[in-house]
Amino acid sequence: MNQPKVLAFDVFGTVVDWHGSIAREIDALPLAVSGDEFALAWRAGYQPAMQRVRSSELGWTSIDELHRMILDELLERFGIGHLDEAAKRDLNRVWHRLDPWPDAVPGLQRLKSRFMVCTLSNGSIGLLAEMAKHAGLPWDCILSAEVFRAYKPDPATYLGVARVFDVAARDVMLVAAHHEDLAGARACGLGTAYIERPLEFGAARPKDVSAHPDNDLHARDLMDLADQLGC
Amino acid sequence: MNQPKVLAFDVFGTVVDWHGSIAREIDALPLAVSGDEFALAWRAGYQPAMQRVRSSELGWTSIDELHRMILDELLERFGIGHLDEAAKRDLNRVWHRLDPWPDAVPGLQRLKSRFMVCTLSNGSIGLLAEMAKHAGLPWDCILSAEVFRAYKPDPATYLGVARVFDVAARDVMLVAAHHEDLAGARACGLGTAYIERPLEFGAARPKDVSAHPDNDLHARDLMDLADQLGC
Repeated sequence: MNQPKVLAFDVFGTVVDWHGSIAREIDALPLAVSGDEFALAWRAGYQPAMQRVRSSELGWTSIDELHRMILDELLERFGIGHLDEAAKRDLNRVWHRLDPWPDAVPGLQRLKSRFMVCTLSNGSIGLLAEMAKHAGLPWDCILSAEVFRAYKPDPATYLGVARVFDVAARDVMLVAAHHEDLAGARACGLGTAYIERPLEFGAARPKDVSAHPDNDLHARDLMDLADQLGC
Repeated sequence: MNQPKVLAFDVFGTVVDWHGSIAREIDALPLAVSGDEFALAWRAGYQPAMQRVRSSELGWTSIDELHRMILDELLERFGIGHLDEAAKRDLNRVWHRLDPWPDAVPGLQRLKSRFMVCTLSNGSIGLLAEMAKHAGLPWDCILSAEVFRAYKPDPATYLGVARVFDVAARDVMLVAAHHEDLAGARACGLGTAYIERPLEFGAARPKDVSAHPDNDLHARDLMDLADQLGC
């Protein structure tokens, strides 16, 4: 394995717990709605919404706008469309204040001692910066689909990281809890590290986190990744 | 004065000491060249080079490439064109390892306790991220001309910061040691804070740092700015 210079992290699910964070916020509202179900439904709308941008059905649309489009539909479906505009706007920003997995902050602190650590997320720059401030994520740099005007798995995103840091693709390693994201990076020549997040979809739906032989590394969490990379 | 939510910092000269850092590196080389003169000449080529991009004479060109174009001309002019390619490449990256003014790191630490603190520099994302890692600058987010595909004082840069954070222009304050940069921000509706950097061009050429009445704030350094903003 080539020793990377830059570690680029997927964020939703890999670094922060979107399911638990959203479920907790919804469950805390005075609404007869299951936080677990609402979180899953919101996330389920994410890939189809991005696909509308990727296919050029929609022009460039920020993740906040996509989240809001899905949210408006969900509020009707779950029978809570009566929320006022300020409440809807605040709820949509839950994605800016997702909580990190417990290993994320100490793991990133160790990893940044040796590597450039940056995000490579479909989240917007502002969302990722506010999330980092909320969660204490010590990124060296926030990179996003917004910088490259393309959503993962568009090669422009993976190769964009190498271009930003003026290094070869193989000097960048994508760190993610999703095999399809890692496959996109690998096809562009990046290194890949898989992170197990068995509870990404909640405790009721444990995720298969078995190893894929094509990844360079397979780690239990970011502390384990730091161990494996000698930090 | 409107209380800002986001502080966007000019970097070269405002946060880091380009003149002193470059002069020290040049003076440490076994070359009969004045570091002071070399640093001034390199920086003097900067605005004309960016103007070639602004005027569309050149397509989008990164700051590393612009610095290198200027450097190649300077090496000839100073009679040191014989440096090998690796040495030239390393020298060009001096802009990635500029040292901060002494107040910069503690000042930013205080300011980030209350505000989103980001760069708004004509430097590239990679350059600014490496500089931050070198100097320990605790940015919440690195924004750059590269993100907006426009160099300051193009309004797209100042208004781009507001767009990234989904706030009004007046909720962003530009912090800079250069009145023309602040004037560009003010014309777009941003708040402005001037920082005195009397030694920006070296001890031999003290800079006029008198106050301009159109700026919202005038601060001796970033610690003074933190005082004035109640951090």
